[in-house]
Amino acid sequence: MKYLEDFQAGQVFRFRTAPMSKESIMGFAREWDPQQLHLDEEYATKIHGGLIASGFQTLLEVFKPIMTEMMTTMANIGGMGFDNFRWLKPVHPDEPLDVELIVNAITPSRSKPDRGILQYTIEARNPDGELVFTTQSMAMMKRKPALSEPGPTS
Amino acid sequence: MKYLEDFQAGQVFRFRTAPMSKESIMGFAREWDPQQLHLDEEYATKIHGGLIASGFQTLLEVFKPIMTEMMTTMANIGGMGFDNFRWLKPVHPDEPLDVELIVNAITPSRSKPDRGILQYTIEARNPDGELVFTTQSMAMMKRKPALSEPGPTS
Repeated sequence: MKYLEDFQAGQVFRFRTAPMSKESIMGFAREWDPQQLHLDEEYATKIHGGLIASGFQTLLEVFKPIMTEMMTTMANIGGMGFDNFRWLKPVHPDEPLDVELIVNAITPSRSKPDRGILQYTIEARNPDGELVFTTQSMAMMKRKPALSEPGPTS
Repeated sequence: MKYLEDFQAGQVFRFRTAPMSKESIMGFAREWDPQQLHLDEEYATKIHGGLIASGFQTLLEVFKPIMTEMMTTMANIGGMGFDNFRWLKPVHPDEPLDVELIVNAITPSRSKPDRGILQYTIEARNPDGELVFTTQSMAMMKRKPALSEPGPTS
């Protein structure tokens, strides 16, 4: 299990998303985001040159490898939110995205000695190297148990 | 179809989410966000007093009625992103959320006369009236066709 102290500013973790097929884009859209942009290829082509994925699906696909490969081994108390969350370019079918998670800061809590905040930036690029999605995020994590207990001299 | 000019600052639109069952929370988590907080009731109870939904699922459930009931009738070019996106409190099983979408501003584009930006705030409250999720968001929308075409005197 990884704790807050196991991370440091400047670390970069790399992931790759599973590309979304047309069927997957339309299926997701029917359930969560039934806009024509994600369901009607002719309409979407006029505006964006082709069918585009729901931004919600792009978000989930970007985070899926992060959650599955990384967060499940972290002492995570909970995600806190996002800042400067931007869908910069449409994501089309069959485009895998290269994702970087860059650690910006780890900040122990002042009021609760058992926890602290991990701040990080996400950048997702399409096969042409274009940045299609970026955000900053924060997760509340546990500190190493030994460090949050009173030491022998305290 | 609603265009940018059909909205004005101060408008409030209200929605209600479908409550998430334990099964739905675990099913979503297995696909997208397999953290113990969303899959292991005993573990989650120690930290949060019970199983909690993935924040990604809360986001999707909050936006589902907005996308389905509102955005599908809007001339939406695409969502742009979020600012100050915060999961403020955990969401537990079987809690429907009351959602308000508050229009903050509509801003016609200076460079592209056929479009503009709709800015809005989302607030989602649990059955106890506690704010559990909030964000600001922006969508790029089309302007009314008549207003973006040259007039007879131009």
